[in-house]
Amino acid sequence: MRYYKIPDETIRRLPTYLRGLLFSSEQGRKSISSQDLADFVGANPSQIRKDFSYFGEFGKRGVGYDIEILAREIKKILKVDVIQKAALVGAGNLGSAVLAYTGFKIYGFDIAAAFDTDPKKVGKKIKNVVIEDAANLWTLRKRKIKLAIIAVPRDAAQKTADALVKAGVKGILNFSPCRIAAPGKVKVITIDIAMDLARLPYYMSAG
Amino acid sequence: MRYYKIPDETIRRLPTYLRGLLFSSEQGRKSISSQDLADFVGANPSQIRKDFSYFGEFGKRGVGYDIEILAREIKKILKVDVIQKAALVGAGNLGSAVLAYTGFKIYGFDIAAAFDTDPKKVGKKIKNVVIEDAANLWTLRKRKIKLAIIAVPRDAAQKTADALVKAGVKGILNFSPCRIAAPGKVKVITIDIAMDLARLPYYMSAG
Repeated sequence: MRYYKIPDETIRRLPTYLRGLLFSSEQGRKSISSQDLADFVGANPSQIRKDFSYFGEFGKRGVGYDIEILAREIKKILKVDVIQKAALVGAGNLGSAVLAYTGFKIYGFDIAAAFDTDPKKVGKKIKNVVIEDAANLWTLRKRKIKLAIIAVPRDAAQKTADALVKAGVKGILNFSPCRIAAPGKVKVITIDIAMDLARLPYYMSAG
Repeated sequence: MRYYKIPDETIRRLPTYLRGLLFSSEQGRKSISSQDLADFVGANPSQIRKDFSYFGEFGKRGVGYDIEILAREIKKILKVDVIQKAALVGAGNLGSAVLAYTGFKIYGFDIAAAFDTDPKKVGKKIKNVVIEDAANLWTLRKRKIKLAIIAVPRDAAQKTADALVKAGVKGILNFSPCRIAAPGKVKVITIDIAMDLARLPYYMSAG
């Protein structure tokens, strides 16, 4: 199932809402108002209501959204209602942090494979994942792993992406601070951890 | 100088545009069209023109934006036109990756201090920064460091934020997968590296 008319900006916000819903659920809540969800995720309620309007009516006046139903629907739209296997390339500091990051489970991700070019790392285990030789990226196709995370040095990023595309990977999360070219059928999202820091000074009061 | 009416969503996109401009500049370009910039950052040109309209007229019909002027203006708006010192708390895998990340320089950031609670890490040097005892976070006030990055385990995140706020920190970039409470005058941006991965399956073609 695919909802064709949902704008990219809404899709970008859905994981934030999902996280807000799951955290609220952890705290024992069953329903949440758009105002509370807005406070939780740092958005505004009218934006939330508009975003949700793209895929149906979930809120009840005076009661708010049913957390379980709404979370399930968002997962379905994002296609994370099934476990999604992902591969990590690059087991340096950032890659190791990715392997240790517990937050992936919330969204149904399983980092099922990890690769590195360094022979000293190959064969070692980080959080139950054995590091494999990056020369074997081609095996992803038969293992049906369609998602990959790139955490290699900038110089190696494009080469890594090319190998992943060749191995049938359809979605790439790129942590290298550079642009990656890929065929149109492959979606690449580049994360720049510095970029988020760059939004802070604007909001900081003087003195 | 502060431009009061710029929406948060526009502020969120400005660092992306800035990065696109700086990368284009690295490639020797002097000007760029909204279409090219849009392709570069994965946005749409009308969104870019609308975002830029909040703070002036920079584009010339048929010529595009002057990269240098536009980059300077964006830096001024984001207040990253001066070097901003930042402190890192937590020198584990993610913290080490932050210290090694070259991308901060693009935005004028200098990770000038790093802290950890682990006595084995204190005194060690990562990328020219000596790890200090986290008990000394209070020194940030006299060192005039107003920005901090939290990369500690989830359980320690709120306590760390409280200590940072007490030390006069005004902006916090939080990598711990949890919500952090802070006084209204302190801006907190929480980064969830899994959240961006959660956007990928939606875009992935079947098969």
